[in-house]
Amino acid sequence: MKGTVLYGPRDIRFEHRDDPKITEPTDAILRLSATCVCGSDLWPYRGIQKIDGPTPMGHEYCGIVEEVGSAVKSIKPGQFVVGSFATSDNSCPHCQYGYQSSCVHREFMLRAQAPFLRVPQADGTLVPTPGGVPDANFVPSLLACSDVLGTGWFAADAANVEPGVTAVVVGDGAVGLLGILSAKQMGAGRIIAMSRHESRQKLAREFGATDIVAERGDEAIARIKDMTKGIGADSVLECVGTQESMTQAIGATRPGGYVGYVGVPHGVVFKGEDLFYRHIHLHGGPAPVRRYLPKLIDLVLKGTINPAKVFDLVLPLDQVAEGYRAMDERRAIKTLLRT
Amino acid sequence: MKGTVLYGPRDIRFEHRDDPKITEPTDAILRLSATCVCGSDLWPYRGIQKIDGPTPMGHEYCGIVEEVGSAVKSIKPGQFVVGSFATSDNSCPHCQYGYQSSCVHREFMLRAQAPFLRVPQADGTLVPTPGGVPDANFVPSLLACSDVLGTGWFAADAANVEPGVTAVVVGDGAVGLLGILSAKQMGAGRIIAMSRHESRQKLAREFGATDIVAERGDEAIARIKDMTKGIGADSVLECVGTQESMTQAIGATRPGGYVGYVGVPHGVVFKGEDLFYRHIHLHGGPAPVRRYLPKLIDLVLKGTINPAKVFDLVLPLDQVAEGYRAMDERRAIKTLLRT
Repeated sequence: MKGTVLYGPRDIRFEHRDDPKITEPTDAILRLSATCVCGSDLWPYRGIQKIDGPTPMGHEYCGIVEEVGSAVKSIKPGQFVVGSFATSDNSCPHCQYGYQSSCVHREFMLRAQAPFLRVPQADGTLVPTPGGVPDANFVPSLLACSDVLGTGWFAADAANVEPGVTAVVVGDGAVGLLGILSAKQMGAGRIIAMSRHESRQKLAREFGATDIVAERGDEAIARIKDMTKGIGADSVLECVGTQESMTQAIGATRPGGYVGYVGVPHGVVFKGEDLFYRHIHLHGGPAPVRRYLPKLIDLVLKGTINPAKVFDLVLPLDQVAEGYRAMDERRAIKTLLRT
Repeated sequence: MKGTVLYGPRDIRFEHRDDPKITEPTDAILRLSATCVCGSDLWPYRGIQKIDGPTPMGHEYCGIVEEVGSAVKSIKPGQFVVGSFATSDNSCPHCQYGYQSSCVHREFMLRAQAPFLRVPQADGTLVPTPGGVPDANFVPSLLACSDVLGTGWFAADAANVEPGVTAVVVGDGAVGLLGILSAKQMGAGRIIAMSRHESRQKLAREFGATDIVAERGDEAIARIKDMTKGIGADSVLECVGTQESMTQAIGATRPGGYVGYVGVPHGVVFKGEDLFYRHIHLHGGPAPVRRYLPKLIDLVLKGTINPAKVFDLVLPLDQVAEGYRAMDERRAIKTLLRT
């Protein structure tokens, strides 16, 4: 088969790779129905995150089980499954606490921008869709559950979004936009989206944003304070991962409020005294998507949510390099790759 | 009257000061029944926290109301009251959310190591004991509610202590010891106290510690991992405020666990990536003692808890300098000053 490999900054190649094979008895091999490019793929693509030599890319996936290892019990060939970007046995203590992305058997997936994929810990990692193979129309939204929606959902959950709260979403990438959708599903009364891009503002509103703030930095914080009678927001979703975005998130939060952060921090530092006197709750990390998958799949199949709207560019897999370029240049929010 | 003033590192003087007077209509004047020295007083005493000239000291207090300003409605002369180290109107939005120590009218108290004290925002800050003036035996425990117990309680609350959890308490000062008492009251199943001082270990056990860890740093973390089957603790109370203690607290917490931190951070820095991949919940700050005062006073007056045990040195107020010295040299856990 051919698959996606990053050779260096902005050097994405779609080239021959060996077909994946079962290497552990707990593995499964999937024939992917679709895959996509993640905002986090742009960190190494832009050279901000170093790579050690050519690196196979892709960690969002769904598709049909082709083959399973001898120790796999619940996952069967022919099932349509969605998995998290982090593998998990779903039974270790961390998994039982709902932190499957800290599983003792965690591996961060790679190699999913390809037609076939080996998934370790298949029984714990994969969730079959109820009712058999779903209609193809659902594939993009089911694919979104694998990371981008699950991560936005975790941001809202970590930010303690509850019915009636005022939420702020920092970041108008796909995760931020789906953070808006998630906050809406969790009942937020007001959702303030930070965005200065018209097409993203539009999607933000479709997903449930009630207000848009285009300012940044101190001006953005002042705007949000104004909009909340000087109090600040109850729940702030930080979906970028830079010092600037984190500072903005913390500044927008009311004392006793919550910051849920899912943007992989790059050089972010918190000063103890600053957090202390602000009374912020802080929680985040690699989203435990596996915890949410059954619920998210259900919401998708019922038609309650349509997270696939973040895919504003669809390309055949062999044009993956253009998919990266379009996201890098912010011409696309998120690229879906047809396998 | 005479009161306590810090002139510079280890230079505490008990000297003439003007009697406090009502300066705002929302003030009250108290005749203090007792006061004490706080662990946080040692930061400026040791010169680690700079002061701008002579500084009146003391922020823990309880006593009889002598006089109230014209706008004070619920607090009356003759009542026995306990107040927080942070004043609050108890009605602003932050107060209503339970973060009275972020009140828009917050002032951090000073001048309480004295026989008389002016308390701003008397109606919001002070809580009268139910049933009139309590027996003198209760005074030390009621005094403890004002900060040291309230702060330990917040540490446990911020660390999400719930029935059955495994809690770790970093710091065997008075706040840490009362964090143990608080975790016990909240139903922790196991309470691991970090302490290498025999007298403090003894009190830790009296307050509810089930295990003592004398190691520090990486060794301490390894011990706690061993004691929790490699998982880490659910709830960790950080009651010191140094980088070393915070690193230890974070290292001892399981993924998805909670760190409640109440030691005023001095030079503490959190690295975003480190927190991210550890999945820690982080919350802390100046304890919103006012939120807890009614409950804590009730527990004291019912005899359920006896936080006064942390006062292992009792001196007349005019020997306050010796009270500081004894704590600085760790000869005393906490000094109560008789007024």
